[in-house]
Amino acid sequence: MATSAEIIAVGTELLTPRRVDTNSLTITEHLNEIGIEVAEKHVIGDERARLSDSIRSALQRSEIIILIGGLGPTEDDVTRDAVAAAIGRNLVLDEQQERILRARFQQINRPMAAINLRQAHLIEGAEAIPNPHGTAPGQFIVVDRRAIALLPGPPREMKPMLENELIPRLRKLLPGEIIKTRSFRITGIGESDLDTLIAPVYTKYTNPVTTVLSAPGDLSVHLRAHGASEEEVDALLREVGDPIRELLGQKVYTEDPGEPLEAVVGKLLKDRGATLATAESCTGGLIAYRLTEIAGSSDYFIGGYVTYTEPEKHAVLGVPRELIQIHTAVSEPVAAAMAEGARRRSGATYALSVTGYAGPSGGTEANPVGTVYTAIATADTTRVLRNRWGLGRSRIRTLAAQFALDLVRRTLIAS
Amino acid sequence: MATSAEIIAVGTELLTPRRVDTNSLTITEHLNEIGIEVAEKHVIGDERARLSDSIRSALQRSEIIILIGGLGPTEDDVTRDAVAAAIGRNLVLDEQQERILRARFQQINRPMAAINLRQAHLIEGAEAIPNPHGTAPGQFIVVDRRAIALLPGPPREMKPMLENELIPRLRKLLPGEIIKTRSFRITGIGESDLDTLIAPVYTKYTNPVTTVLSAPGDLSVHLRAHGASEEEVDALLREVGDPIRELLGQKVYTEDPGEPLEAVVGKLLKDRGATLATAESCTGGLIAYRLTEIAGSSDYFIGGYVTYTEPEKHAVLGVPRELIQIHTAVSEPVAAAMAEGARRRSGATYALSVTGYAGPSGGTEANPVGTVYTAIATADTTRVLRNRWGLGRSRIRTLAAQFALDLVRRTLIAS
Repeated sequence: MATSAEIIAVGTELLTPRRVDTNSLTITEHLNEIGIEVAEKHVIGDERARLSDSIRSALQRSEIIILIGGLGPTEDDVTRDAVAAAIGRNLVLDEQQERILRARFQQINRPMAAINLRQAHLIEGAEAIPNPHGTAPGQFIVVDRRAIALLPGPPREMKPMLENELIPRLRKLLPGEIIKTRSFRITGIGESDLDTLIAPVYTKYTNPVTTVLSAPGDLSVHLRAHGASEEEVDALLREVGDPIRELLGQKVYTEDPGEPLEAVVGKLLKDRGATLATAESCTGGLIAYRLTEIAGSSDYFIGGYVTYTEPEKHAVLGVPRELIQIHTAVSEPVAAAMAEGARRRSGATYALSVTGYAGPSGGTEANPVGTVYTAIATADTTRVLRNRWGLGRSRIRTLAAQFALDLVRRTLIAS
Repeated sequence: MATSAEIIAVGTELLTPRRVDTNSLTITEHLNEIGIEVAEKHVIGDERARLSDSIRSALQRSEIIILIGGLGPTEDDVTRDAVAAAIGRNLVLDEQQERILRARFQQINRPMAAINLRQAHLIEGAEAIPNPHGTAPGQFIVVDRRAIALLPGPPREMKPMLENELIPRLRKLLPGEIIKTRSFRITGIGESDLDTLIAPVYTKYTNPVTTVLSAPGDLSVHLRAHGASEEEVDALLREVGDPIRELLGQKVYTEDPGEPLEAVVGKLLKDRGATLATAESCTGGLIAYRLTEIAGSSDYFIGGYVTYTEPEKHAVLGVPRELIQIHTAVSEPVAAAMAEGARRRSGATYALSVTGYAGPSGGTEANPVGTVYTAIATADTTRVLRNRWGLGRSRIRTLAAQFALDLVRRTLIAS
């Protein structure tokens, strides 16, 4: 059976009504990848006694305890003390950590207060986990066949330490099993339709384990297989993954779990030496924003027009005033004219337009809130598609942007 | 001292990498309002033994234990059993609950399987909490001066039961304390500078408790005070909050914790009957997207131009080609010309422009990656500001958008 872990997030602020611990999600993902299940998660405030108790109980239940946060220099930062107390060890000033800390303060040209020395204290017998992005080193200690790790709370410090330092250390402690994953990112199908389609394949297997994750307009299927050898695991992932991939066809936009749709669209444009412009009404710039999140997007993204009013649609995109008067701004002809206008004005190979009612107010009987027209103009033709999504301004905009980007992808792979 | 509670969310699905327990946030908010602090939060999978242990430990530490989830009819739904085991009581079939359950199935015209009777079992001595939106009743029991509540996991079932049934029951058990909060949302200052500025005020008080939360370019300070009467608590919040507010001055953009900067900007524009247009280069549409997330933004947002290439800056905004040739696209004169061009083209009262190097590549010696020029054009003048932020494409864009929106806010309140 899988080794089990507990995650303890430390910090009184995580016990307020507006903060959730999301570090544990990142940690869970990485632990799962190496075959470790998370059995319990806890959030404890900055109270030494409570935290110590919590660590003591966790050590009785689970092989791996990961603590996040509470490694700062102040009196409120109790994680080091609490772990030391829980396992009955002392905290000792580590000379090397002190040197690193002093050098760091010198580098940022700030005086180091005496209190900061707390961060150079290690639990007796613990190994320091270097923190390239902050002053708090992590710590790693194995006691009575239990592994305990202390990581800082800020995600940009925690994440590289987890990936580069902690996971490799934990992997060494594990039985030599191999775990590999295969992922499909999918759009253009709902969660229940997806499940109906692929459940007949994946429910026949307990290895790989199949998980379906869902965000608005963006689904993913993850297969996680374990076995004694690379070949065995690869064969399992093919055996289950290939039929799933075939059932989903072009709905799969990537097998790289870290690659968003806008990156896929960017690659396709770049491969073809093509360029894109956008004309957005109800999405208000979201499509342009997503496209330009990708480094190097200036190679293929020329520009975007957020024409939020009717005069702007006319003045910037050349949509005839009469067209809007006759059909309203949320209509097939106006969507087409917006895309064509954006293409003409920018000189891009392709232009995309979106016009719709995101709500909460607006809409007509024929086109109620949630109705969105999406158009793509190429040299030869302009295609317009109509969708109607359920309520929720932010959700409608998210779905409309995802659909529009996918329309570019489908147009490009068909070309 | 405040009464303390622990929340235990039950469900193996909450231990996967993509699910967070958000029920505990709602519960925390309601508990805080009646003076109960949440001391610990836990997520436990659908394992009876682990859950029982967890409840047993919680009973030793805290006066109130709230369990969420695991009240369904299947073998996986272990919360009832685990609580009964933890306090050494039996589960007994409750005739009234059975009647309610049978009536419910009749109402939705479905046959009731024998397994569903599990949901009609109450812990000996527990009171049923009616669930108007589902088949699982909640339960409430006081044992050895500890209150234990069981609520179902689906938020639409849990929330009304919490608000209408559980909170009134807990309130009766309490010494009658009042808790209130006051929040400041802040931009234009870093976290450590903020803390240096206000720590001399808030560290003198343990009531209210002060928490500083930080997102890129967006900080907030929360004060939470408790006391015997509304007047006492309000006075405490004024005593600490007013000096903090004064120290921060215009850096506070709202006291409403749920109001983002783009909503504040929107209100200011609307109040003045003014309109806004945006010309974005490195932020790529993020500012327009944020402005249009606010329902009703078409009242004041005219449109945005995402001029991602040099020809676009010329063609759409009328930035003279020579200006770009002489100064480069990331420069004070080009930022000014972009804002003025956007204002001219849109006819908006105010126009905002952003041009910079978000990286990872690009930049010059004089303007390395992270350099961003932000300009605001009004009828009389154009102001340009230069910033340089640390690395990270997405972070630079987030900070640039936040700074730009804040520049509009500051311009509006000064006008």
